[in-house]
Amino acid sequence: MLYQQIDMELAEREAWALRRQKGIPNNRRLFVLACMDERLPVEEALGIRLGDAHVYRNAGGLVTDDVIRSAMLTTNFFGTKEIIVVNHTECGMMTATGEFLTNALREKGIDPDSVAIDPALPELKLPPGVFPKWIRMFSDVDEICLKQVELLRNCPLIPADVQIHGYVWEVESMRLRRPGVRLAEKVNTAKAMGAKG
Amino acid sequence: MLYQQIDMELAEREAWALRRQKGIPNNRRLFVLACMDERLPVEEALGIRLGDAHVYRNAGGLVTDDVIRSAMLTTNFFGTKEIIVVNHTECGMMTATGEFLTNALREKGIDPDSVAIDPALPELKLPPGVFPKWIRMFSDVDEICLKQVELLRNCPLIPADVQIHGYVWEVESMRLRRPGVRLAEKVNTAKAMGAKG
Amino acid sequence: MLYQQIDMELAEREAWALRRQKGIPNNRRLFVLACMDERLPVEEALGIRLGDAHVYRNAGGLVTDDVIRSAMLTTNFFGTKEIIVVNHTECGMMTATGEFLTNALREKGIDPDSVAIDPALPELKLPPGVFPKWIRMFSDVDEICLKQVELLRNCPLIPADVQIHGYVWEVESMRLRRPGVRLAEKVNTAKAMGAKG
Amino acid sequence: MLYQQIDMELAEREAWALRRQKGIPNNRRLFVLACMDERLPVEEALGIRLGDAHVYRNAGGLVTDDVIRSAMLTTNFFGTKEIIVVNHTECGMMTATGEFLTNALREKGIDPDSVAIDPALPELKLPPGVFPKWIRMFSDVDEICLKQVELLRNCPLIPADVQIHGYVWEVESMRLRRPGVRLAEKVNTAKAMGAKG
Amino acid sequence: MLYQQIDMELAEREAWALRRQKGIPNNRRLFVLACMDERLPVEEALGIRLGDAHVYRNAGGLVTDDVIRSAMLTTNFFGTKEIIVVNHTECGMMTATGEFLTNALREKGIDPDSVAIDPALPELKLPPGVFPKWIRMFSDVDEICLKQVELLRNCPLIPADVQIHGYVWEVESMRLRRPGVRLAEKVNTAKAMGAKG
Amino acid sequence: MLYQQIDMELAEREAWALRRQKGIPNNRRLFVLACMDERLPVEEALGIRLGDAHVYRNAGGLVTDDVIRSAMLTTNFFGTKEIIVVNHTECGMMTATGEFLTNALREKGIDPDSVAIDPALPELKLPPGVFPKWIRMFSDVDEICLKQVELLRNCPLIPADVQIHGYVWEVESMRLRRPGVRLAEKVNTAKAMGAKG
Amino acid sequence: MLYQQIDMELAEREAWALRRQKGIPNNRRLFVLACMDERLPVEEALGIRLGDAHVYRNAGGLVTDDVIRSAMLTTNFFGTKEIIVVNHTECGMMTATGEFLTNALREKGIDPDSVAIDPALPELKLPPGVFPKWIRMFSDVDEICLKQVELLRNCPLIPADVQIHGYVWEVESMRLRRPGVRLAEKVNTAKAMGAKG
Amino acid sequence: MLYQQIDMELAEREAWALRRQKGIPNNRRLFVLACMDERLPVEEALGIRLGDAHVYRNAGGLVTDDVIRSAMLTTNFFGTKEIIVVNHTECGMMTATGEFLTNALREKGIDPDSVAIDPALPELKLPPGVFPKWIRMFSDVDEICLKQVELLRNCPLIPADVQIHGYVWEVESMRLRRPGVRLAEKVNTAKAMGAKG
Repeated sequence: MLYQQIDMELAEREAWALRRQKGIPNNRRLFVLACMDERLPVEEALGIRLGDAHVYRNAGGLVTDDVIRSAMLTTNFFGTKEIIVVNHTECGMMTATGEFLTNALREKGIDPDSVAIDPALPELKLPPGVFPKWIRMFSDVDEICLKQVELLRNCPLIPADVQIHGYVWEVESMRLRRPGVRLAEKVNTAKAMGAKG
Repeated sequence: MLYQQIDMELAEREAWALRRQKGIPNNRRLFVLACMDERLPVEEALGIRLGDAHVYRNAGGLVTDDVIRSAMLTTNFFGTKEIIVVNHTECGMMTATGEFLTNALREKGIDPDSVAIDPALPELKLPPGVFPKWIRMFSDVDEICLKQVELLRNCPLIPADVQIHGYVWEVESMRLRRPGVRLAEKVNTAKAMGAKG
Repeated sequence: MLYQQIDMELAEREAWALRRQKGIPNNRRLFVLACMDERLPVEEALGIRLGDAHVYRNAGGLVTDDVIRSAMLTTNFFGTKEIIVVNHTECGMMTATGEFLTNALREKGIDPDSVAIDPALPELKLPPGVFPKWIRMFSDVDEICLKQVELLRNCPLIPADVQIHGYVWEVESMRLRRPGVRLAEKVNTAKAMGAKG
Repeated sequence: MLYQQIDMELAEREAWALRRQKGIPNNRRLFVLACMDERLPVEEALGIRLGDAHVYRNAGGLVTDDVIRSAMLTTNFFGTKEIIVVNHTECGMMTATGEFLTNALREKGIDPDSVAIDPALPELKLPPGVFPKWIRMFSDVDEICLKQVELLRNCPLIPADVQIHGYVWEVESMRLRRPGVRLAEKVNTAKAMGAKG
Repeated sequence: MLYQQIDMELAEREAWALRRQKGIPNNRRLFVLACMDERLPVEEALGIRLGDAHVYRNAGGLVTDDVIRSAMLTTNFFGTKEIIVVNHTECGMMTATGEFLTNALREKGIDPDSVAIDPALPELKLPPGVFPKWIRMFSDVDEICLKQVELLRNCPLIPADVQIHGYVWEVESMRLRRPGVRLAEKVNTAKAMGAKG
Repeated sequence: MLYQQIDMELAEREAWALRRQKGIPNNRRLFVLACMDERLPVEEALGIRLGDAHVYRNAGGLVTDDVIRSAMLTTNFFGTKEIIVVNHTECGMMTATGEFLTNALREKGIDPDSVAIDPALPELKLPPGVFPKWIRMFSDVDEICLKQVELLRNCPLIPADVQIHGYVWEVESMRLRRPGVRLAEKVNTAKAMGAKG
Repeated sequence: MLYQQIDMELAEREAWALRRQKGIPNNRRLFVLACMDERLPVEEALGIRLGDAHVYRNAGGLVTDDVIRSAMLTTNFFGTKEIIVVNHTECGMMTATGEFLTNALREKGIDPDSVAIDPALPELKLPPGVFPKWIRMFSDVDEICLKQVELLRNCPLIPADVQIHGYVWEVESMRLRRPGVRLAEKVNTAKAMGAKG
Repeated sequence: MLYQQIDMELAEREAWALRRQKGIPNNRRLFVLACMDERLPVEEALGIRLGDAHVYRNAGGLVTDDVIRSAMLTTNFFGTKEIIVVNHTECGMMTATGEFLTNALREKGIDPDSVAIDPALPELKLPPGVFPKWIRMFSDVDEICLKQVELLRNCPLIPADVQIHGYVWEVESMRLRRPGVRLAEKVNTAKAMGAKG
């Protein structure tokens, strides 16, 4: 009977729309931490689809208190069992130092030491002089990727059995790599290729 | 000559891969703040494509210090002129209160008042008892959307001429709405439709 | 031999064109009662195809004597075993009361009590004053859907073993729902979601 | 700015979902009266699409009081300006006489003179003996099509300026024809083709 | 090894190009006799493809000495085992009588009794007065189809075990039928449908 | 209004189905004479489509009295203005002599001098001994193609202003050529290419 | 876990990019020697794809010292086990003699006996008068193809177990053939087809 | 008339098949020198199609006497006006030194000083000890690319007005680059990106 087919489809739709209150996790039980860069197609890069993952993105793809908050929620309360970090080459976070940017803001008339860094949570304050560090500029994408994985693995707010790995997205080749494994450095010269003789 | 065609394509590729150091903004000069929920296809929902926007996503699509940091960077230093906030119905942030979750963590042996909320920036600390608020659970998606827009509009770290608007993604219809404009409430009864007579 | 293949195809074509005189039922042995609204794609909504069902549509998707006539014919004489009713949100039948519309007709110079409601069957007459009720305006789509199912289930002109169910098509989401099961009411607030704590 | 594009799309969606209360007619300002037969793909036959027409369908595609009710509503209150009738060959309404079917029901234990023909509107009653006529069996599809057009054109409940035409759908060729214009009768013999000499 | 794959493909190509000298029959061992009319898509009508059949076509799809010659060759020497005849409705051969056309030629200055009917084979001559019959105009497509099948079945130049059948292509429905089986005559009236009662 | 669109489409359909009695020629006013070989896709070879041409096909694509009959009809009475002949390489008509085949028939018990060559027109008779010539075997495809064009151009039953040309289809390359223009003979050796020096 | 899928894909990418230093042969362990002509689609002609073969192409598809060098490298050091030679009809190498071209160069002011034939390897010199032969013009494509296969089979720098075959690409039919097997010569006349009788 | 269309198409086909003897150059008047590597899709890399270019490929994409021969022919006699060189990263030519490979051959029993390097042209001989250099192994792909362009630009056998450029294909990104312009070296660290402050 047709009504039975329809009822099954309606049940699926309801399970989709009421996932959180029914306690259904995302399809891959996955949390992604990635940079907000416009050249990083997160789903395509990882080979995932709508429904598969909670995708956190910020400037740099860096561990912050907001990342910890979001990862704590999904791993403790929404069934997530795996975390993947994706940083990328030519990140805007490598274009200047925190001090340089802080000075630039000062020149615009902003006082970094008195400005509210979180307008929704005034209780969250930075000690004087920490503002440049808070911007979290970095200098090496492979190192920073390994560092984020380490930070998450050691965080007590994330259950110890969550699997955590990191990758680097190359905007120059639009492909993924393991941190530190730069194919482009092994292909241009005989020396890099380990020529014989 | 073919070499001229090839050189033009190579220049385009270089402009893509070196966008940040060449000072090229994203295509739509856009920053998006959206929830990390797996049912929210950000690009499809907004009708944008790879290269168009910096996409920030966290639990709830809420303004945090990380959002301020990321938005500050893109609007002050990377040429962004517009911000769009996307919250969504049936958000996990409406499934419990902050206190309820804090207690649940305590039962797992975690002390919310002593745990480091930002392992990468130890200087960032919460006063005792603020942890439940820091989780940022909320109770009404339309209100919370309007609130985020207001928070961003009033933030001194974001230039005043940046255009800021918010929308709600309906997971039940997989469509966007303006906050507070719920079509589903205007269509079920004669009264809701403003029947004549 | 090719002629055998051709003869088989011709037999299929003949069975299609002479279905009624050969006593072949529709593919799903199904009768659908649906509203005539232009936003209701009946086949797509139910997941059916050409040849699958007898599809009755009128203003509202309401049980009338014409519905009874049509359903009586298909269930008693053409092999139909299932009935599905489809009403829809934002139906024109909820835009006014029958009295309001009757008055509007009167203002156009039409006398509802004397006009022939069925020019092909003059024997079919309404008692005075029943015209507004005959228009069959209604006030709640979920209730009206349940009501139509009940009317059909109790009708002696329809065999008792015919399976009868009803659904509501949401024009705001272009999806089907069970009458009374409105997902859109369970997703906007923590309270509606049954938040813990 | 992107928000302007999104707002325009949301306005279109709202206009779709709230068509009736906003007084927006269907796209072609069209009402279709067609048979409920499973071999009649109404939209394809007429070359119309979702949103284009109010589509009324019953057993036979015949004018009844329900048709008058539905057509009255759409032409007087929903902006419709054109009516198209579609009957079809090999219609189930030509498989027997009304008397034959009435007797068949009697043999099943149903008393046609006492049964309620409209369970939702008990005021609607048939005089004794009219039941067979009420079933509306017919004997010639071309004649019946012309007749329905005439009935609608003369109905005072339908505004005089509404354009009304009728067509016959051939299930044997899956194509439309004008009533009375049967190509298949002009192609099989020299005589039918008006051979010279 | 790749060369083995290539050699197999080359062998197939050779078998295609040298079919006749290698004694390879057509794929379906089929000979088709069809009308040359532009509205008759022979392959599509029969569901056959390139390589499947020897397709003979002339004015009318009629048995002539050229048909006998061609059918004799393919059935006796090229491996053909089946013949299918396809005539069609609204054939030009039903637009006039042979006498009418002969007179029309005479008016153009042509003497039918002296003109060479076969410029390549002068030995082939018509007795005086037979020209109109030679044009082979006919008056009923179903009859003519049956007749061609009979002529071929009785022809001593075609082996007795060849299967021979005929069909009529309806240009009005673009479908095939068996000769004499006109669906269009069984669908327009209750009488034609064999109505009960 | 929709009915106007529909009426236009119905008029087109009628013009298609009643082409001959309405005196409408085929789309390209074209008659094709081609071989019946299964490797010759006539429409594809000439770049024509359904409705474009009257397509005559027989064993060899040779001028016979049936060709003259068919071409006479289409050029004098159906509006045709152009004739194209298509013969092809590796034709079965080059696999033996007429004498060889006649003897083969004799061995099967058939007397070529007494058999009826046209069962539908007994008046058409061959003088004794002409049977082998009547089979029309040939020995050179380029010559035979030019010959057919010549025969048609000189035929008084075809109007003098009809344009007549011939081509050869190469089954080995599945392409067309002008008769006598064999590219394959100009490409294999320096001598054939007219090498310099 | 997703990271395992990603790691597998990264390993594949690395194996692709570092094929030579990892000692991975091409997919088919194949070396192709083909002409550089713009009408020869090597991959399509052989039915191979990216990654399948080392493809050597020069003027003529002829064995030279550069071919020996390249074939020596791939068969001795890169794992190749098969060689296929592809020459083609209408090759530019058949348009003139070496002497004719040498004279043409002389007329442009070039002295063939003193010019460096290999600017990268001055040690490679031609004895006087050998320049015309060095250009390697040829006169028969089938012969030249067989000759190249023979040269390669006898070359001591290529391992004896390498399989070596040659084919000719016909630009006139855009198909491959075995050297010496010219279908186009077997299809035009009864004699070429070996007609009986 | 159709025959005119067909004749035009036949003329095009003839111009394709007889390009060299008619003196028609390739479509882009282009000669490509590329490596034979299986990971280099020459046409796709350059954005060219069948018919566009003479494509020379050898081990390394290096200038040899065979390259000079082929380029001399196409630029002096076949109308070519542009040359593009394509080398690629991770080339097999960077996996060892010529000496290493020569020794490896010696170990297989081959005497490099006595073996014929060109079996088709015995006059072409290497002085003793030059064999390792003749293998043409190289050590830097960007340098080698620039070098090949220089060698060709200075070659007197190639007309001075021919435009000559070179590119490097990156197998790790499957994209082209200008020699020496390695995007991958500018994107991994703040220092490489020229970070401010």
